[in-house]
Amino acid sequence: MGKYVVTGSASGMGHAAAERLRADGHEVIGVDQRDADVVADLSTKSGRSDAVRAVMKLADGVLDGAVFAAGVGAHAGKERLTVEVNVLGVTELLMALQPELAAAGNAKVVVFGSNSTTSTPFVPRRAIRMLTAGDTEGAVKLLRRRGPLAAPASYAASKLAVSRWVRAKAVTQQWAGSGIRVNLLAPGPVLTPLLRDQLASSSGKHVRSYPVPVREYGTPEQLAEWVMMMLSPAADFMAGSVITVDGGTEALLRPNDWPSPLPVRRVPRMLAALRNAPRSGQVADYSDV
Amino acid sequence: MGKYVVTGSASGMGHAAAERLRADGHEVIGVDQRDADVVADLSTKSGRSDAVRAVMKLADGVLDGAVFAAGVGAHAGKERLTVEVNVLGVTELLMALQPELAAAGNAKVVVFGSNSTTSTPFVPRRAIRMLTAGDTEGAVKLLRRRGPLAAPASYAASKLAVSRWVRAKAVTQQWAGSGIRVNLLAPGPVLTPLLRDQLASSSGKHVRSYPVPVREYGTPEQLAEWVMMMLSPAADFMAGSVITVDGGTEALLRPNDWPSPLPVRRVPRMLAALRNAPRSGQVADYSDV
Repeated sequence: MGKYVVTGSASGMGHAAAERLRADGHEVIGVDQRDADVVADLSTKSGRSDAVRAVMKLADGVLDGAVFAAGVGAHAGKERLTVEVNVLGVTELLMALQPELAAAGNAKVVVFGSNSTTSTPFVPRRAIRMLTAGDTEGAVKLLRRRGPLAAPASYAASKLAVSRWVRAKAVTQQWAGSGIRVNLLAPGPVLTPLLRDQLASSSGKHVRSYPVPVREYGTPEQLAEWVMMMLSPAADFMAGSVITVDGGTEALLRPNDWPSPLPVRRVPRMLAALRNAPRSGQVADYSDV
Repeated sequence: MGKYVVTGSASGMGHAAAERLRADGHEVIGVDQRDADVVADLSTKSGRSDAVRAVMKLADGVLDGAVFAAGVGAHAGKERLTVEVNVLGVTELLMALQPELAAAGNAKVVVFGSNSTTSTPFVPRRAIRMLTAGDTEGAVKLLRRRGPLAAPASYAASKLAVSRWVRAKAVTQQWAGSGIRVNLLAPGPVLTPLLRDQLASSSGKHVRSYPVPVREYGTPEQLAEWVMMMLSPAADFMAGSVITVDGGTEALLRPNDWPSPLPVRRVPRMLAALRNAPRSGQVADYSDV
């Protein structure tokens, strides 16, 4: 049986994933603001450092996987909180725990993205780049200029930034090359405490108008099934992928935007990848297959 | 136990999926050119009609799911074959079998895309649109103008067309609204007979230079695990999604291209979707959650 760290383990999808792992006999190191093995505040630098130290102690050198489910939704005035938890709450912890994950030999990591990455308009691209580089202060300043759209734009920007960060890192020597598979799970509206609060709030009507083609919300248990799949050996041949489980909203709004053919401006990257493949890409010798 | 139709059931990933379904006790209606319950040629109109008739007879009114794994790779001079099987071999069969799938109440459909949709340059966008509309003859004429790139461009165009067709249809009343979940599985290089032939051919060296960050090829059995997941109740909250299982090539070549924020030109579609949600999108009443 394995040892897994799960952030956001006290509620919602993180809780459901932790329960499923424990039910299968695995050891879970839960991280949350309350009711967790590691009680920590992922919205501050010191809180994240404390969390890393405590997880390392419990992991004792090896982690078979990690699930980053802790997240903060769109709340007016809480833009800093949103980006700190959703971006740095993943990137800082993941970087710090890389040695423990590498020690397992075939660790799997699931990072929660969101389908709001593809359904939110007016997200400043510069803010995404700043967040991907870890500049939360600059990004929040920029995002707050969006006025009433600042909160949803901050949420989407945080999830876009963490998605891009994961995709860029996942394929490198430090991760894929160290046997660690890092992939993203992008849910649509799932009946978590977060969504229930939104539905019960004054903006509940707007939340209900969000189009979900399958005509029902997801459940934390359904999403936990996808987490388990992404932690299983079936994910050995998967790195930097985004699995969208959203009731069809992305396909409704962006049917032709993805997949899209490689644009001509990306051909140099493609040629460089082909040239580097023997070193950093495809290195196995398949001459006898 | 359920009843499933699997195209391409005689070899590769289709064979592995059929085996897994049978091992779990399901009834499988295999469709292939040989060694199948329904022997048919999906590259011709009459072959596809014959296949539909034979499948309908065996299905006897109800299908719990369908797996469209039959596919033809990139072969110079065989562009027509490639697009007929890869596009019409899916769209015509799926449309014809919609009543049987709807009869099951919660059917699941897995269509094989490919990560070549995002890693192939110089694919004419007009050819994709023509193929999505079913005009294979016009598209092949256009694609052949690409000269030595005609074969890979035809393969990528066929998989792009079927992916877009699936995403557009999956979210409609006829599919999501009829309890049918249609999603795409986009593999990278998997050790099928098709890939083994390519590796053994004169272009084997080029095939080996294709960058795969996890440094090994996928196996048909791994991909069959994803098919099983996409046929399971975990896919109830999934429609029109693309699951890329490709060893990281897409993330390597396109880390920032997807997910991408909703462009301003897509906002009208978004607003229409919000307005139509009570009719065609989110219709369930969640006032008591």
